Amino acid sequence: MLVQKYKDMLSGKSVIRQLSEFATARGKEIGYENVFDYSLGNPSVPVPQEFTDTMIKMLQERNPMELHGYSPSLGIQSVKEKIAASLEKRFGIPYRAEHIFMASGAAGALAHAFRLVTEPGDEILTFAPFFPEYNPYVNLTGAVLKVVPANTVDFQINFEAFEEMISEKTMAILINTPNNPSGIVYSTETIKRLAQVLKDKSAEYGHDIYLISDEPYREIVFEGVDAPCVSAFYDNTIMCYSFSKSLSLPGERIGYVAINPACKDAADMVQMCGQISRGTGHNCPPSIIQLAVAEVLDKTADLSVYETNMNILYNELTALGFTCVKPGGTFYIFPKALEEDAKVFCEKALKYDLILVPADSFGCPGYFRMAYCIDTEKVERSLVALRKFVKEEYGK
Amino acid sequence: MLVQKYKDMLSGKSVIRQLSEFATARGKEIGYENVFDYSLGNPSVPVPQEFTDTMIKMLQERNPMELHGYSPSLGIQSVKEKIAASLEKRFGIPYRAEHIFMASGAAGALAHAFRLVTEPGDEILTFAPFFPEYNPYVNLTGAVLKVVPANTVDFQINFEAFEEMISEKTMAILINTPNNPSGIVYSTETIKRLAQVLKDKSAEYGHDIYLISDEPYREIVFEGVDAPCVSAFYDNTIMCYSFSKSLSLPGERIGYVAINPACKDAADMVQMCGQISRGTGHNCPPSIIQLAVAEVLDKTADLSVYETNMNILYNELTALGFTCVKPGGTFYIFPKALEEDAKVFCEKALKYDLILVPADSFGCPGYFRMAYCIDTEKVERSLVALRKFVKEEYGK
Repeated sequence: MLVQKYKDMLSGKSVIRQLSEFATARGKEIGYENVFDYSLGNPSVPVPQEFTDTMIKMLQERNPMELHGYSPSLGIQSVKEKIAASLEKRFGIPYRAEHIFMASGAAGALAHAFRLVTEPGDEILTFAPFFPEYNPYVNLTGAVLKVVPANTVDFQINFEAFEEMISEKTMAILINTPNNPSGIVYSTETIKRLAQVLKDKSAEYGHDIYLISDEPYREIVFEGVDAPCVSAFYDNTIMCYSFSKSLSLPGERIGYVAINPACKDAADMVQMCGQISRGTGHNCPPSIIQLAVAEVLDKTADLSVYETNMNILYNELTALGFTCVKPGGTFYIFPKALEEDAKVFCEKALKYDLILVPADSFGCPGYFRMAYCIDTEKVERSLVALRKFVKEEYGK
Repeated sequence: MLVQKYKDMLSGKSVIRQLSEFATARGKEIGYENVFDYSLGNPSVPVPQEFTDTMIKMLQERNPMELHGYSPSLGIQSVKEKIAASLEKRFGIPYRAEHIFMASGAAGALAHAFRLVTEPGDEILTFAPFFPEYNPYVNLTGAVLKVVPANTVDFQINFEAFEEMISEKTMAILINTPNNPSGIVYSTETIKRLAQVLKDKSAEYGHDIYLISDEPYREIVFEGVDAPCVSAFYDNTIMCYSFSKSLSLPGERIGYVAINPACKDAADMVQMCGQISRGTGHNCPPSIIQLAVAEVLDKTADLSVYETNMNILYNELTALGFTCVKPGGTFYIFPKALEEDAKVFCEKALKYDLILVPADSFGCPGYFRMAYCIDTEKVERSLVALRKFVKEEYGK
């Protein structure tokens, strides 16, 4: 018989998906260029030309049996070596190939990290606002995701609530910095304090608490922002990385798990990921994509457009009277709605062809997310609609 | 804390992997061309040139944001449409895009199929000899894999043992035809009889029993062999396909689940796969690889070498007195060892630089597997070693 829990999930449709579908449908009516679609976090700048050139060169020159042959289940050794060397150079942490597990994007990396350190019934804590897909990602493994309420002052961690919620059942903490949806980067102070709590609680509970650090936005940090490397502050850190945003390759499903070499049994943990992948059916990410990203590890797409867009939106939103913490990275901004129910607020915005996402599912009701990974020209045109919306609906 | 079950798995190393590592090490001593490595099922013929040309053309001409953008979690619509049309044309079953779920190779397809129709504790039956990775694939989902003993006369299904083992707890049957490791293709008679048992038992138990048909070797069928389309004989069939072998692309992780349109809730089942993938972390296979295989659906690599190799080996093995059922497809042959313990037999073969895999882990002790996806020239050279081995060790 079909498994009921997956059948039941069919009725719940993500708000983001619904809004994105609305935007597409509306685009067919009035031209998509006239829909100010801030719903989806799909990169808006092309992959670096070096990636494309590398792919073409490999396809033209390499032995196809080698190029398209099975990758070892942990990933291609030369690729793992290059990633480890790049991480060591950049963050001063002695990563080696044996600490790297190649994964199918951040989702694949997280699927392995959760299974590595939690049994069914164990708890993972995360902090609002959070990426709503964390719910199925964690809960379908049998572990339980608990969400610590937001610190809405600056969207750093709400430590008071956190220390109340952490318990002996907490096996891992899941963080995402730079953060989707807030755009906030956790400061060195925040990470240090978090690390201290985890050390104290690990000792108190008599078991390791792992820090799972989901870092797909690591390369999108704005000028002057303090953006510490999480792994440098806490030994038991499992870094989950994706090239989706930095290289504008979200469809190619490529990322990795990097186990902090200071973890007890660090190399075993990578081997264990290989065992986990036999159950999840991953095996390895595509060989050619592994080989190609390894050639452009120190490149990114031209990410500067995101900071440009952020500044335009931040200035306009604050001028219009929105409460809004200035993003330190990503391509998201997370203002407070102009009325209590952000769903109603975002519904009204649709009349002005502004597609905004209410943040209830991000664990932060009353706020909304704008994904400004769109052309700057369109951001500028959207300001007219935004002003009209605020004036007509809220008299501001 | 680290999850013990995955840690425990680290000590068990697959025999195939060990032998393959031995072959590589020995190759460094005497030149790999002198090691008759029949251990690994890695295709030995290149991907069709049309695939490479399509990849290069897309990389050169297409908008990179579209090309590398997120695929829908069920797969790219145009790709699903093409696959459905190709299946309909070929097998006369009215597949539509809504019945296709794009997956990361057969392993990814199976990971979704198992979760679709089994809850933890449910049983899946498969037939010896079988691909040993089915054990972790199934057991790590929480379901239980049970293996029906082999019919060693012709490696079709042992129906007597099967009907004894099927029970109310059986939620799915897993078959692999053409078969790894036997090389045998289930006949129309076998599939018809299997379908009848499943219909009868579904009625008797009052629940659907699904037939999960793992078909990565579907395109590698030899001249004159009866190779029926499984789905045509049983409504509740979940086809799991991979392009790994047909296109010689095992590293690129591309395949699909095709739900028989006659399944109750067929389209829902594909949607459910999309939900399952949120837990397994798949999301979708790489966009560019999806798009590229869709352009070469009716092509294969030049698979004729496998039949050539099979005939050479089959003739030699039978001439040397081996008991051996003639393969109908794949690139495997599965003779009976010349002594009771196939592990001892294969150990002795190593002295002659013949890398043969004992079939204990395939559920068929006393037999061994040869993966003849190697150059014909090497197969021919290996015959000298094979004759020497048999003569010196067994006096034949």
